[in-house]
Amino acid sequence: MEVKENSVVLDEAELDLDDKDDRAKWYTDTILQSELADYAPVKGCMVIRPYGYALWENIRDALDKMIKDTGHQNAYFPLFIPESFLNKEKEHVEGFAPECAVVTHGGGKKLEEPLIVRPTSETIINYMFAKWVQSWRDLPLLINQWANVVRWEMRTRLFLRTTEFLWQEGHTAHATDVEAEEEAKRMLEVYRTLAEDWLALPVLTGEKTERERFAGAVRTYCIEALMLDGKALQAGTSHNLGQNFAKAFDIKFQSAEGGLEYAWQTSWGVSTRLVGAVVLGHGDQKGLVLPPKIAPIQVVIVPIYKTEEEKATVLSKCKQIAEDLKAVARVHLDERDNLTPGFKFNYWEQKGVPVRLNIGPKDIANNVVEIARRDTGEKIRGVSQLSLINEVSGLLIAIQKNIYDKALAFRKASTSTAADYAEFQKVIAEKGGFVEVYWDGSSEDEAKIKEQTKATVRCIPFAQSGGPGSCMYTGKPTSRKVIFAKAY
Amino acid sequence: MEVKENSVVLDEAELDLDDKDDRAKWYTDTILQSELADYAPVKGCMVIRPYGYALWENIRDALDKMIKDTGHQNAYFPLFIPESFLNKEKEHVEGFAPECAVVTHGGGKKLEEPLIVRPTSETIINYMFAKWVQSWRDLPLLINQWANVVRWEMRTRLFLRTTEFLWQEGHTAHATDVEAEEEAKRMLEVYRTLAEDWLALPVLTGEKTERERFAGAVRTYCIEALMLDGKALQAGTSHNLGQNFAKAFDIKFQSAEGGLEYAWQTSWGVSTRLVGAVVLGHGDQKGLVLPPKIAPIQVVIVPIYKTEEEKATVLSKCKQIAEDLKAVARVHLDERDNLTPGFKFNYWEQKGVPVRLNIGPKDIANNVVEIARRDTGEKIRGVSQLSLINEVSGLLIAIQKNIYDKALAFRKASTSTAADYAEFQKVIAEKGGFVEVYWDGSSEDEAKIKEQTKATVRCIPFAQSGGPGSCMYTGKPTSRKVIFAKAY
Repeated sequence: MEVKENSVVLDEAELDLDDKDDRAKWYTDTILQSELADYAPVKGCMVIRPYGYALWENIRDALDKMIKDTGHQNAYFPLFIPESFLNKEKEHVEGFAPECAVVTHGGGKKLEEPLIVRPTSETIINYMFAKWVQSWRDLPLLINQWANVVRWEMRTRLFLRTTEFLWQEGHTAHATDVEAEEEAKRMLEVYRTLAEDWLALPVLTGEKTERERFAGAVRTYCIEALMLDGKALQAGTSHNLGQNFAKAFDIKFQSAEGGLEYAWQTSWGVSTRLVGAVVLGHGDQKGLVLPPKIAPIQVVIVPIYKTEEEKATVLSKCKQIAEDLKAVARVHLDERDNLTPGFKFNYWEQKGVPVRLNIGPKDIANNVVEIARRDTGEKIRGVSQLSLINEVSGLLIAIQKNIYDKALAFRKASTSTAADYAEFQKVIAEKGGFVEVYWDGSSEDEAKIKEQTKATVRCIPFAQSGGPGSCMYTGKPTSRKVIFAKAY
Repeated sequence: MEVKENSVVLDEAELDLDDKDDRAKWYTDTILQSELADYAPVKGCMVIRPYGYALWENIRDALDKMIKDTGHQNAYFPLFIPESFLNKEKEHVEGFAPECAVVTHGGGKKLEEPLIVRPTSETIINYMFAKWVQSWRDLPLLINQWANVVRWEMRTRLFLRTTEFLWQEGHTAHATDVEAEEEAKRMLEVYRTLAEDWLALPVLTGEKTERERFAGAVRTYCIEALMLDGKALQAGTSHNLGQNFAKAFDIKFQSAEGGLEYAWQTSWGVSTRLVGAVVLGHGDQKGLVLPPKIAPIQVVIVPIYKTEEEKATVLSKCKQIAEDLKAVARVHLDERDNLTPGFKFNYWEQKGVPVRLNIGPKDIANNVVEIARRDTGEKIRGVSQLSLINEVSGLLIAIQKNIYDKALAFRKASTSTAADYAEFQKVIAEKGGFVEVYWDGSSEDEAKIKEQTKATVRCIPFAQSGGPGSCMYTGKPTSRKVIFAKAY
């Protein structure tokens, strides 16, 4: 390989990704430049561009399969919710009413009752469940919906917090509390699998404190990921709703024993926020680093030539290799002839494509290709064209694992402990990341700590490592540990 | 086979499907009872239940593949459109403003500018296209969106016309008029393929008259299907938008020759209305008749037993057969033990499942099964379990073809001609269906005919059979034939 273009670097001041403001700028720039999304001309909304939507489709399809494999069926409920519905569950309306977009006019007339654009669909779905559930034979009712929802957010950020976003929301009804609890935890485990096995993002699983609980839930479980800037990101939640909504919407069933009982329920959701998690969880100076399993393009081929004669030979071979590789990977051949190979290398690095093949005349003469790994920057020269399919298949698996391992190592290195509040404040201010502490404080204590440090309890992890200790804030004896962090 | 339950008929007065009111009742009852959809507690909206949504998913996935195979990429644009955007294209706003739902409040405050809930997305998508398109190298821009849209309809009907519906909308920009025209026709051909090869619905392809044209289009193409009650259903449209939106939104590009030109555009869409088309295009007295290629369940297995001992043997064999058949079909084993086989036969017939396997103890003893076809009602007894996979695979293909052929034969039998307006009125009133006539009338003439007969020009078919003739309404000489029909 003679070509040197791959040493070209982006002609811009390098960002310091340890710097908070630079990281925020990097995040936005990366999303815009890699064409994942664009700002929309509507407050707080974005346009998901084809590259970003293809990434979302891969995440969605993986999750959809897991949702169906666990016995759920997809359905679709109306976008609009009568205002009166939202008022039926007290905590729920308090949580969501301030964030609602309201339709007051339709077909040129003022509506008798305003319609809420769904911020989440518990109310309208449970209204329907009350019609459908009569007997224990109708249970469990296991429904999922892929939909857009709207929450009127004050401060928005591409993918992480937008006025409108895409998500799935699962809604289930069960005959017993035990079954509902199992369901809530089963779906959290599905989310953990999605995050770790597909998005290559290690997550903590645990329960939210009362203060962070979903409006209307008895218990909220979550997966929490750590971003490379040391901030936590809630990546998915699963709620045990108890009988709160069943009572508000009168979802009753005849039990096998003949009694009339309220159903036990769950709801659970993840959203396009996961795309933001992938960007912030793996990206580097050069742009996106995408896990192969969800990357829209897994392998990009950059043909290298100078003369028209070379072009013909190289493109022909590249096409054949692209065709061969389609059996094992999502492949793209970059045939644009108005750009240099160096430009293309940077272009695809910014887009986070896991594997790049550079193929020039000498490679063709020697029946080899050069492989460049996005995750490590490593180049593998002189790979035989005969073994390319095996090489690429193996590499995609190795890259997926490496990206995960790197994120896990980062999380470990970014997880601290603190024995008391003074130490806690110091760690949060200077290092960030996850801080694991003994905790026996109240919701009010959490509010004060948030005011003083911006950190919140991310979760009470299922995996409790500690024996007896004392609460870092109140000093009271407790064996319960929680994870604090500043969060998106 | 000793079991006689399959001769049980639904205990209800039979509907006369030739009667208009009965057919309307049949349509609604069939959708509700087969659990395709349910009424929602929001005016004009419906809930798509799991069985209906699975049918939609199959249609969607087939179409999504064709859309991608023709070079388009999916993306996602905001639900809300600033009111001012809609006003930018004069004809467009006149067409859609009366049908809009309007968000006036968000986050507890009155909005400075009201937001329209998208009735279609030309305006917001073309606003973005203007940002993205700079050079001829950015063209063609081939985008598709799967989304929900809202049109405030006065008279609604499940699937066929609902306030909110799901659809895909393609939006493209091209360097030349010729390319845009090719694209509009290419996508109409994709829709024809979807309708005929997947939904088993023969369709006419052609152009709309000016009166029926999309608001803002230069030419509108359509596929028109004929329902079993003799009414036409517009099943998909594709529009050549010319430069109308490009001029309204300033989508300009530097041409290869260096000039600055407005882009040429298309848009095209099909919706959940297609589910209604399948119901009305194939259904019979017993309920749905689903084409195998889109049926959520292609093969249902009904186990037949009397004693507990028989139950164990039969269920075990049914499970094994279900497992084997999964390689070639979407299979469901109906294990419910509180229902008789006869009830189950009717239940699955109403749901339109193409193939039913009845399996009882004697079948097992003889290593056979009984197959029942939904489309013909035919029973095939004593089918060897060894040849079952081949038998079922072949049958699914044969059923798909038979359902299409039946619909085509119906359309042929329901297509008439009329030499003059008196004959036309008689045919429309007495027979309905498609009426092919010579036509040289004006939009005003069309309006008058609609007022008098409720019939409209469905399309000017691409396939023009006639030589010279005279317009059935004006008597003027013309060689152009059009298709009139009453329509949904």
